[in-house]
Amino acid sequence: MYRDPVPSLEASSFQPSAAAAMRPLRVGMIGIGTVGAGTFRVLARNQALIAGRAGRGIEMVVVAARNLARAASVVGTDVALTNDPMLVATHPDVDVVVEVAGGTGPARAWVLAAIAAGKHVVTANKALLATHGNEIFAAARQHGVAVAYEGAVAVSIPIVKALREGLTANRIEWVAGIINGTTNFILSKMEGEGLGFAQALEQAQALGYAEADPTFDIEGVDAAHKITLLAANAFGMPVRFADAQVEGITRLQGLDVACAEQLGYRIKLLGVARRRDDQGVQGVELRVQPALVPATHLMAHVNGSMNGIMVKGDASGITMYYGAGAGSEQTASAVIADLVDVARLDGTSAAQQVPHLGFHAHAVDHNLAVLPRAAVLTRHYLRVPVHSAQQIEAVGAWLAAQHVPVLQVQLAHNKALPPGSGPQVLVLTDAVAQATVDLAVHALAAHPAVAGPVVTLRVEMLEG
Amino acid sequence: MYRDPVPSLEASSFQPSAAAAMRPLRVGMIGIGTVGAGTFRVLARNQALIAGRAGRGIEMVVVAARNLARAASVVGTDVALTNDPMLVATHPDVDVVVEVAGGTGPARAWVLAAIAAGKHVVTANKALLATHGNEIFAAARQHGVAVAYEGAVAVSIPIVKALREGLTANRIEWVAGIINGTTNFILSKMEGEGLGFAQALEQAQALGYAEADPTFDIEGVDAAHKITLLAANAFGMPVRFADAQVEGITRLQGLDVACAEQLGYRIKLLGVARRRDDQGVQGVELRVQPALVPATHLMAHVNGSMNGIMVKGDASGITMYYGAGAGSEQTASAVIADLVDVARLDGTSAAQQVPHLGFHAHAVDHNLAVLPRAAVLTRHYLRVPVHSAQQIEAVGAWLAAQHVPVLQVQLAHNKALPPGSGPQVLVLTDAVAQATVDLAVHALAAHPAVAGPVVTLRVEMLEG
Repeated sequence: MYRDPVPSLEASSFQPSAAAAMRPLRVGMIGIGTVGAGTFRVLARNQALIAGRAGRGIEMVVVAARNLARAASVVGTDVALTNDPMLVATHPDVDVVVEVAGGTGPARAWVLAAIAAGKHVVTANKALLATHGNEIFAAARQHGVAVAYEGAVAVSIPIVKALREGLTANRIEWVAGIINGTTNFILSKMEGEGLGFAQALEQAQALGYAEADPTFDIEGVDAAHKITLLAANAFGMPVRFADAQVEGITRLQGLDVACAEQLGYRIKLLGVARRRDDQGVQGVELRVQPALVPATHLMAHVNGSMNGIMVKGDASGITMYYGAGAGSEQTASAVIADLVDVARLDGTSAAQQVPHLGFHAHAVDHNLAVLPRAAVLTRHYLRVPVHSAQQIEAVGAWLAAQHVPVLQVQLAHNKALPPGSGPQVLVLTDAVAQATVDLAVHALAAHPAVAGPVVTLRVEMLEG
Repeated sequence: MYRDPVPSLEASSFQPSAAAAMRPLRVGMIGIGTVGAGTFRVLARNQALIAGRAGRGIEMVVVAARNLARAASVVGTDVALTNDPMLVATHPDVDVVVEVAGGTGPARAWVLAAIAAGKHVVTANKALLATHGNEIFAAARQHGVAVAYEGAVAVSIPIVKALREGLTANRIEWVAGIINGTTNFILSKMEGEGLGFAQALEQAQALGYAEADPTFDIEGVDAAHKITLLAANAFGMPVRFADAQVEGITRLQGLDVACAEQLGYRIKLLGVARRRDDQGVQGVELRVQPALVPATHLMAHVNGSMNGIMVKGDASGITMYYGAGAGSEQTASAVIADLVDVARLDGTSAAQQVPHLGFHAHAVDHNLAVLPRAAVLTRHYLRVPVHSAQQIEAVGAWLAAQHVPVLQVQLAHNKALPPGSGPQVLVLTDAVAQATVDLAVHALAAHPAVAGPVVTLRVEMLEG
């Protein structure tokens, strides 16, 4: 069902010298929680400045909220309020719908209704786009509207713009990011103060860095939503969240944080998307997991609740993007940047000029698949509990015999070990397929020298 | 003199579904040195991928070069070659002119001719835009064409795009960057290997990180060109290179690098643009100088020939951008991203949708002036040579009496001092106007305790 665009939008042929005279972009917003309130506040505070950049004003005309009284306390009396998000999605006075309510099912319906009504959409909803992105972007293409989502990926960091516009010359080799502020805060606490996961999570909750139900964050789901969207933009593939391999930090032990430090590494929850075309393996690694990063690496210095993302392009080399990992106005910064992009568009067809996922429809490779876990190729860290320190050589030799390319073997120092712990052999490997590591670890379990469960973590060098 | 745009461009109404069928964007390039050759190579190598992102092909049709034989060895036989840059600037088959020849006088004439002929312009020429930008952008606005210059500022880092599009919600408070790879390489050598400036420069030249005539780099002029362009985009002001305060690293002593390290700082050549509106001071600090940065700060970890830029916005908080500080294909990455932006434009009027300097003409504040050096407000580092270590207290007290807000006073350790050096008092101050520091230093020269020239450097905390 296609509706003609709002007539006045159509009529507004762009006249640079008359920019000040163009009528404002009219915004309807669904949701007025943390991000919505920040968006309203920043739009109001920086109104003139934003209009000077956009070439016209950006005006909030209607907001949908569950609690109208609370919404009124934020937006005052100049903005219409409603309980019905669908009314905002299809409102005749609205040019663009900002969806910051979250969730997937209802949000999908609102966004699709807005698109069908010829509205542009701006959303900070990563779960929505990771799960329903292909359907939503196809609908937007059909109706010639923009669906912008900078706020869905890395808070205030313009990483979607960097990938989709700033690095377009490049064959992207990989994207790797610390893209969840909650888990980075927890990991920084575990490392800096020697806390266990549970204690660090408690502190994060007490300080407001983790939600009451932190599952999506600590299980890596939120980071997986984000890296999935980045992968699509980097490689020209559909949104393939269902195929991503997702591991959070809930099983990470303080012991491994300490052992990693001994080896000169720090553990970060990384979202990684890497294009592979080697040794007969073709496809994309798409995965989230706690991984060791060299302590001297810039990514190891992304601490607390901050985000950091690295992109390796064949021409650009490595570029990195860093900023806040959470925050009301910080996310609003990205939502409003998307609104300015829409305001700068000259009529609706232009919405397609920067394609939603970086590549035009004809150039999206639907055969580009996510590689299975077994094929993922990285360096590895292994911690092998042994009965006696003398068995260090046996473990190293035995792993090598199992085709694990061992680079370094050492014993964990006593200061890294909790009281009463037996000796631990630490192993760093060269790049090796996960399948080989899994087999070796499975077999190690039966080795007489091994005194307990073997822990493995990936090691990411993040090198040019 | 306005010429109608190339008719076929005008006729190409944008049809997303027919994107693959659109005719290519035709490029004429002036200069085929390091950046030009890289641009040609990356365009050729990633042709299909770039077309998939841009929605149409990007095709080099003519190149102007001094040495035609050498140019032919780069571009082969499919591209027309000429000795005459003006011919490229006004070529009827060219939609966009890439200027990568460098220099200011002739480049200005070529670029203005291309604009007058209705061509879009992409340039990596910071000197040109810093000195003639206001004239060039005004002409481009008049003729409705784009002048894009991502490659002129920070090599492959999309920082112009970040400021002009990604952070549009924000009142930008400051931009600070390590934006010259040559000087950062030299400073990293001075710090890492304890070299003096002259030795470090020699090594940089031997390794190709510094040109035979490195004046523009080591005197800070190149960095000043770049920070001037960033300031215009950040604050909505004209290009004011002539007003920038520029100090290079040629007078920097290894002794101060060592003393800074003792205090927990590293010295970086920083370009800083900071909006001021305090204590009756209104305007923009626009300056390049070697400055102390806390050793634990992310910017202190931007080493070797890398670039790093921080931006503080009122909503976004601090974001940072990092990447290569030099390189043929690295710069080409930015030049081609600009070409893709042009290729994605739907007709010529759209060229104005993202204004050249981030703000539409009516919103540029022509009264926003660069503050004089005396008004610049930062923390300071002072090194005061004294006759005897006992005089440390006298120096501290005396500076405080001169209204210098002293935070910390200590003696340089022996290991920081070269053989035969007398004692040195190191002082860190709180924020203080340059005028106050200058007066105090001038007066200190007459102080009986002082044994030689006092060195002052700015300290930048780069905090949120």
